[in-house]
Amino acid sequence: MQINATRLHQYLADLATIGQIPDGGVCRLAFTPADLAGRTFVVAQMLRLGLDVRIDAVGNVLGVRPGRKTGPVVLTGSHTDSVKTGGRFDGSLGVLAGLEVIATLNDAGLETELPIGVISFVNEEGVRFMPDMMGSLYQVGALSLAQVRAVKGTDGTTIGDNLDALQYAGADDFRTLDIAHFIELHIEQGPWLERQGITIGAVERVQGICWLACTYSGVANHAGATPMSMRQDAGYAAAALAHAVRAIATAMGPTQRATTGTIKLFPNLINVIAETGVITVDLRNPDASALETAVRRVREEASRIAREEGVTLEIETLAEVAPVTFDEGTVRAIENASKTLGYSCQRMISGAAHDAQILARRYPAAMIFVPSRDGISHNVREFTRAEDVEAGANVLLHAIVQLANAG
Amino acid sequence: MQINATRLHQYLADLATIGQIPDGGVCRLAFTPADLAGRTFVVAQMLRLGLDVRIDAVGNVLGVRPGRKTGPVVLTGSHTDSVKTGGRFDGSLGVLAGLEVIATLNDAGLETELPIGVISFVNEEGVRFMPDMMGSLYQVGALSLAQVRAVKGTDGTTIGDNLDALQYAGADDFRTLDIAHFIELHIEQGPWLERQGITIGAVERVQGICWLACTYSGVANHAGATPMSMRQDAGYAAAALAHAVRAIATAMGPTQRATTGTIKLFPNLINVIAETGVITVDLRNPDASALETAVRRVREEASRIAREEGVTLEIETLAEVAPVTFDEGTVRAIENASKTLGYSCQRMISGAAHDAQILARRYPAAMIFVPSRDGISHNVREFTRAEDVEAGANVLLHAIVQLANAG
Repeated sequence: MQINATRLHQYLADLATIGQIPDGGVCRLAFTPADLAGRTFVVAQMLRLGLDVRIDAVGNVLGVRPGRKTGPVVLTGSHTDSVKTGGRFDGSLGVLAGLEVIATLNDAGLETELPIGVISFVNEEGVRFMPDMMGSLYQVGALSLAQVRAVKGTDGTTIGDNLDALQYAGADDFRTLDIAHFIELHIEQGPWLERQGITIGAVERVQGICWLACTYSGVANHAGATPMSMRQDAGYAAAALAHAVRAIATAMGPTQRATTGTIKLFPNLINVIAETGVITVDLRNPDASALETAVRRVREEASRIAREEGVTLEIETLAEVAPVTFDEGTVRAIENASKTLGYSCQRMISGAAHDAQILARRYPAAMIFVPSRDGISHNVREFTRAEDVEAGANVLLHAIVQLANAG
Repeated sequence: MQINATRLHQYLADLATIGQIPDGGVCRLAFTPADLAGRTFVVAQMLRLGLDVRIDAVGNVLGVRPGRKTGPVVLTGSHTDSVKTGGRFDGSLGVLAGLEVIATLNDAGLETELPIGVISFVNEEGVRFMPDMMGSLYQVGALSLAQVRAVKGTDGTTIGDNLDALQYAGADDFRTLDIAHFIELHIEQGPWLERQGITIGAVERVQGICWLACTYSGVANHAGATPMSMRQDAGYAAAALAHAVRAIATAMGPTQRATTGTIKLFPNLINVIAETGVITVDLRNPDASALETAVRRVREEASRIAREEGVTLEIETLAEVAPVTFDEGTVRAIENASKTLGYSCQRMISGAAHDAQILARRYPAAMIFVPSRDGISHNVREFTRAEDVEAGANVLLHAIVQLANAG
């Protein structure tokens, strides 16, 4: 049994017209009209496929295809919100491949033992409203409805305001849904599969994350009149930390990641020594104790730099997510499906955070990765080859059927 | 003969009320109503002192006290515009001390051989409209009226628009004024005098300046999914350059200054490897060939970093000012005046750019520096002790009288 590639690519092309931006990208920030339109497209397809469709109070959408038994559901899905200049695959692929799995089963007239569900979680990206993976956090009970509604966004409005204004919320509640397995198909968003020449990644772990914001405060002073030895340059301190963070990450080996993606200087003038330098550090490692070591080393280096430059330092922890280990049985179902279909497959670690790792707190979960060209994502140039999209959807189909019939 | 300290401090206090901002600072950005009000204060005092007051087409103000002879004028002055969060001494001290010199000579009924002039140049700071030292550049013929009027500011309006809207321009033209000497009293804006325990700096040279903007372009990518070895991180490259620039400056010895005051990353997100990193480098050295060496080394390091990180690099030269050597006779007059008055005095190099270095292109010029507390300037915390303010004004008085009677 194979998915219908033409239909799946059409799903992807159709959804990409919603919130379209130049160069083939999409902008469907959570709880905007474009995001609502994207979700409406998904709901419409679910209804066409004959699913039992439900929308909950934060806007998560669930469509269920009954099994022979009323038992726990084998669930797949992802999200259709995007970053500001996102690509057409991130999240969307997981939801639309789920629809395609249902369509294929419908075409084949194939019944499964357990019901199969497709879910689309709201606000996975967390760009406008933090934290990210909000819909799945609500689903597993880690956030209450009141907490979600009260979240204030970058524009000052709350999620509650936006849910109400867009009539985005539904009347259903499926937080007590019994889930047998959750499998999420997603693009890798990194270069690993492509460089290894592997088609399918069976994701067995997700990196732990620690986000630090380091604020150095020095003395704003004249660039010409202040000797090098008399400076308390907060901008230099921030830059020196970026330099040190790279060295720490490189020394810790290939599973450690470290990114200094934001630097802000004040007053940020060409001829004034910076009074303030704020730099963020994004640290990731699949091993909890290695991550702890990385965080400790960054803190030590940050303090050493502050001492040497004569500036003060404040470190704020912005986020901290422990590494996740996925369910062995679910990972094995992905490997088995790949083998059956003749795709190359390797176990791997996710560098990005996904709804599946939130579901993993309560249910057996795992992920399927397919290659991202040049590892590029969160970018309009995000691209996954047609044959890899199809491979991922076929593996999803076979893994789901396997799990839904094993129950 | 001594200046009237009470009156000079009152001048400073009065001018500081115009464009006042919290914590004792001033904001009199060039060609704003606050700047015009500051200049009006100066004009009013000049008229009260009986000077022949003239305003030119860009708004420079000149007040002249006649001498026994009609000969070249011994000129002093500075500017009363400020940076956005400036202090009350930068520029203002030079203009107001000039007024106080005139007032003292009037009180004493003392005539000089040559006329004495006080000038206040427009837009010395170059914050809203570039370049800086614009009024003096116009005065020496380096900029035409049409060029000045056409300059577009940070808000999109031209200087011509602002001159007209504020009725800021005058009908006079004193670009052919015969100037015997120009002496500018200014706060040091650096920590050197204070740390040496010296009251008067006889400025004999001004550092040369080179401003570079280095733009690195890499690949925006996912912070978690991209191994360290596969990154083309433009933000890291910019930070690494800041680190390298510090090392270059330190290795070149105490006369070299290097500042990386601005860093801008794009997209500047915590979990995205930066696609673009723009960093500015401000290099200063009083020796032309040493400055050239510094620029070459920074360019080499910038390129090495780009190669190693696999990012592209564009370097733009934003400004280039050759070092200036002041007039020996004028410097000696400052030293003599300090000696007569019993103030400690040392020859020194200016790290900042000043109107005097523009005047030095055509006329014998030099500067008097007085200490800045903690070397702080371009900051509301800028401060010079009352006794140092008085010392500077007294040295200015005696140097001017000496030069005006030697003619």
